[in-house]
Amino acid sequence: MSLNPEIIQKLTTIVGEHYIFSDQETRNHYGHDETEDYVFPPSVVLKPANAQEISAILKVANDYKIPTTPIGARTGLSGGALSIYQGIGLSMERFNKIIEIDEQNLQVTVEPAVITQVLREAVAEKGLFYPVDPSSMGSCWIGGNIAENSGGARAVKYGVTKDYVLNLEVVLPNGAIIWTGANTLKNSTGYNLTQLMVGSEGTLGVITKAVLKLLPKNNHNVLMLVPFYKANEACEAVSAIFRAGIVPSALEFMERDAIDWTLQFVEGISVTIKPEHQAHLLIEVDGNYPEILMQEAEKIMTVVEQFEIDEVLYADTEDEKNALWKMRRSVAEAVKANSIYKEEDTVVPRFMLPELLSGIKKIGAKYGFKSVCYGHAGDGNLHVNIIKGDMTDDNWQTQVPLGIREIFELTVSLKGTLSGEHGIGYVQKNFMDIAFSRTHLELMESIKRVFDPNNILNPGKIFPDEL
Amino acid sequence: MSLNPEIIQKLTTIVGEHYIFSDQETRNHYGHDETEDYVFPPSVVLKPANAQEISAILKVANDYKIPTTPIGARTGLSGGALSIYQGIGLSMERFNKIIEIDEQNLQVTVEPAVITQVLREAVAEKGLFYPVDPSSMGSCWIGGNIAENSGGARAVKYGVTKDYVLNLEVVLPNGAIIWTGANTLKNSTGYNLTQLMVGSEGTLGVITKAVLKLLPKNNHNVLMLVPFYKANEACEAVSAIFRAGIVPSALEFMERDAIDWTLQFVEGISVTIKPEHQAHLLIEVDGNYPEILMQEAEKIMTVVEQFEIDEVLYADTEDEKNALWKMRRSVAEAVKANSIYKEEDTVVPRFMLPELLSGIKKIGAKYGFKSVCYGHAGDGNLHVNIIKGDMTDDNWQTQVPLGIREIFELTVSLKGTLSGEHGIGYVQKNFMDIAFSRTHLELMESIKRVFDPNNILNPGKIFPDEL
Repeated sequence: MSLNPEIIQKLTTIVGEHYIFSDQETRNHYGHDETEDYVFPPSVVLKPANAQEISAILKVANDYKIPTTPIGARTGLSGGALSIYQGIGLSMERFNKIIEIDEQNLQVTVEPAVITQVLREAVAEKGLFYPVDPSSMGSCWIGGNIAENSGGARAVKYGVTKDYVLNLEVVLPNGAIIWTGANTLKNSTGYNLTQLMVGSEGTLGVITKAVLKLLPKNNHNVLMLVPFYKANEACEAVSAIFRAGIVPSALEFMERDAIDWTLQFVEGISVTIKPEHQAHLLIEVDGNYPEILMQEAEKIMTVVEQFEIDEVLYADTEDEKNALWKMRRSVAEAVKANSIYKEEDTVVPRFMLPELLSGIKKIGAKYGFKSVCYGHAGDGNLHVNIIKGDMTDDNWQTQVPLGIREIFELTVSLKGTLSGEHGIGYVQKNFMDIAFSRTHLELMESIKRVFDPNNILNPGKIFPDEL
Repeated sequence: MSLNPEIIQKLTTIVGEHYIFSDQETRNHYGHDETEDYVFPPSVVLKPANAQEISAILKVANDYKIPTTPIGARTGLSGGALSIYQGIGLSMERFNKIIEIDEQNLQVTVEPAVITQVLREAVAEKGLFYPVDPSSMGSCWIGGNIAENSGGARAVKYGVTKDYVLNLEVVLPNGAIIWTGANTLKNSTGYNLTQLMVGSEGTLGVITKAVLKLLPKNNHNVLMLVPFYKANEACEAVSAIFRAGIVPSALEFMERDAIDWTLQFVEGISVTIKPEHQAHLLIEVDGNYPEILMQEAEKIMTVVEQFEIDEVLYADTEDEKNALWKMRRSVAEAVKANSIYKEEDTVVPRFMLPELLSGIKKIGAKYGFKSVCYGHAGDGNLHVNIIKGDMTDDNWQTQVPLGIREIFELTVSLKGTLSGEHGIGYVQKNFMDIAFSRTHLELMESIKRVFDPNNILNPGKIFPDEL
C-alpha cells in the first residue's frame, strides 16, 4: 500500500516535513519489534508532536481508510506495534516528557514515550516508588506498558500496570481527545474506560498522557537464589510460600537451561549452576524494616527446605543483587541469541504451575520440540520459549503451532489464559478461540467497532482472522 | 406498567410459581434501597435460582422489551437497584453460596448474594483476608459491591472491589452466559471485560459468580483517634501522613457533627468530644509485626503533632477498637435518623481535601444548607451529607440541586469526580455532564448498546436524561 500524494500532502501539513518519513530504511526500522523475526514496515512513518496532531492524523486516516499503527519502543513480544497492513506508522517518540511528579498526591503525569526505568528513577529521587518493572524496563516505554498491561518481577506483590493507571488522555479513532477518568484512587462514575483502554493494545485509542499512582519508596530488600533438584518442586514451593503468609516482592522461576544459556550469554555473573539443579527460584522480600525482612527470609527458608534444595545463595551486596537481577532479566535475550524460538506467555493460578510445566514438557515430547521455561512464578505467569534448535523447517511450521495450541488448551483448562503480560497482538490472535467463545469475541469486536467503526487503528491485532 | 398474563405465564414457567411475586407488599419491599426515601416498585419480583433461569428471563425481557433491574441487598446509596421504569425486579437473593475457598491459590469463588462480612469471616477462618469493607459490610452483598465498585475504610491501603475481582460469570442481556476473564492475577488477553463490568451498576449484565483474590491475613493493628481543633488541618494531615512514607490501613475523617450525632444515635460508645474539636481522624495501621506498628504509630504522631490537636486516643483493646469502628460505621445511619438529607460521594486527589471541604462550606452558605462531611480521607473520598434541617421544602427542591451542581463542579475542577464508591445510579445521573463531555457520554452509551441494544437492563441509570 503506498499512500497517494494528496494524503502525503495532508499528513505533511499536520506534522511538518521533518516528521514524516517514507524512505525504506526508516520504514524498516519502525516495521519490527522484539517479536520473533517479523518485519512489517508501514507505508509512512509519522512522528507527531502532540495530541492535536494525532487527532488530525486520525481524521485523515478515517477519511481515506488508512490502517494506522501506534508505535512505541518496539520492545513488544506479541507484535502489537507491527504495521501488518502497512499504512501509517505512528511513532510516539516525541511524547517523552515527565510532565509532573505530584509529591502531594503521590501521582505522576507522564507522556507515553518515557522509558519505564527513567520514570522509576525520577520518582525514586523524590522518595517515591513506581513498582512496575518489566524485564525490558531499561528500554520499554510507559505507553507500551499501558497498551499491553505489562507486568514484571514485582507484580506478585505490587500488581501490574493496570493497578497504577488512574487516568488517561486518549485520542479516539474519530479524533476526539478525552480523559478517560479522574486523578483519583477510587472512582465509581460511569464505565471504567481507563481499564478498558489498558491492555487494549493500541486498538481503541492513542494514549497521549497518563496519570499513574505512586507509592512511598521502601528502602530495604533481601534477595535469595534457591537451587532445586526437581523443577516441579520449585513450582510447588511457589504456592507454599504464600500459604505460609508471605507475600514476596518477587518470586521468579528459571529452568536450568534458562540460567545456563544466560550465564554463557552475559558476562561477569558468578553463579555456579550444578548439572543436577533442575530449576531455581529467585525470591525477594522488601520493606522498610531490615529486621522484619530477615524474619521473612527465615520463614521462606523453612518453606523451601521442605523440598530437595541445594545451598541457598543470599545476595549480600548491591552488586550481587544487580548481578542476579541482570541474570534474570537477560534470559529472554539469551534464548534469542541461542536459537530461533517462539515465546508464549502462559498464565495460570499459581498452584497449577507444576501441572502446567509438566504438561508443556509432555506436549513438547509429542510434537518434537524442546522448551525453556521461566517467568513470574509468583503470579503463575510462565514464559514458554519453544526452541527451534535442529528441528526441520517443515516441522517448525507445521508441528509447533499444533503444540502451541495444546499448550494453550492446557493453560485454559487449568483456569488460566493465553497471555499474562505480553498481549495477544499479531502472533497469538488465532488462538483466541481457545480462551473465548464466539459470543465473547463478537462482544469484544463490537466494542472495537464502537471506538473505531472504520477499523483504522492497529487493525489485524487481538481478533482471530476468522471471526 | 403491568405485565400481561402471557408474560407472567412465561416468567412463572422459568422460575416456578413460588419465586414470582406480584403482591404490593413484596413489590414495595423490593422497590427501595437506602437512597434517600425513593420507592420504585417493580411490576413483578422474580427470584431466580441460577444463571440459566436469568438467561431465560432476559430473553423474555428482550422479546417483550421489559425493563429488568437486578436487585441485591438494597443497601445502595445511589438508587442503582430501583425499578424506576417498573418491569421485572430481579432479586438475586438465592445466589447466596460461597462456592469454594481456594487456599492453594488464595482465591474465593462466590455467588453475588453473599454478605460481604460473611465472606470476610469465612476466609478469615482459613487464615485469609478479603480486605474490602464498606461501612454496610454487615448487610451489603458482594454482587452489589462489584456492581458499584464499592470501597470502604481499608481501600486506602488495600484498594477497592475492582482490585480483587479476577473473573466474573455474567448473564448478558441477550441471555448468553460468559466468564469475563480468567482466574489469574495477570491477564493481557483481549479487552478487560471484567473491569468493564465492575462498577457498571447492573446495566451491562447480571453477575452470577465472582472469583475474588484473597491475601494472607495479617494479625495486628493499631488504631488511634486524633481530635483536631481545625477541620482543615485534619484534612491537611491526611496528605502529610503519606508524605512521611506511611500507608495506613485506614484513614477516616469525621466532622464534629458526624461524631456528635453518632454518639447520640449509637449507645455505649465512650468517646468524649469537646466542643472545640472541629474534626477527628481515625487512623489505623496493620501488619504482622506489632513492634513495627508501634514505630509507624509514632511516626504518625510526629506528623499530626505538627497541627493543633488535642490528646490522641489509642484503642487498647478489641472492645475499644470495635467501639471506634462502630462509631465510624454508624455515621450514615445517624445522619439519616437526624434529618432528611442528600448524600454526595465526592472524591478528589487527597491533597485537595482541605480545598474541597472549605469550598463545600462556602457553597452551603451561598445556597442556605448545612452539610455534615465525613469519609475515607486517605482516598480523598469525602461523603457530603446535605441536611434539610429546617430548610423550606421549596428551597430543598430548588436551591439544593444548584448547590450540589456547584459542589460537583468544584470536585471536578480539583481533578476529582462525582462518585468514589457509591455509583451514579439514579440520583447522580443528571450531573454526569460535569465530569464528562458529550463525546465521552455517547461513547459509554454506545458500549451500553453493544451489550443491551433494547435497553432492558437497569434502564434509567448512569446516563443523563438528556443525552
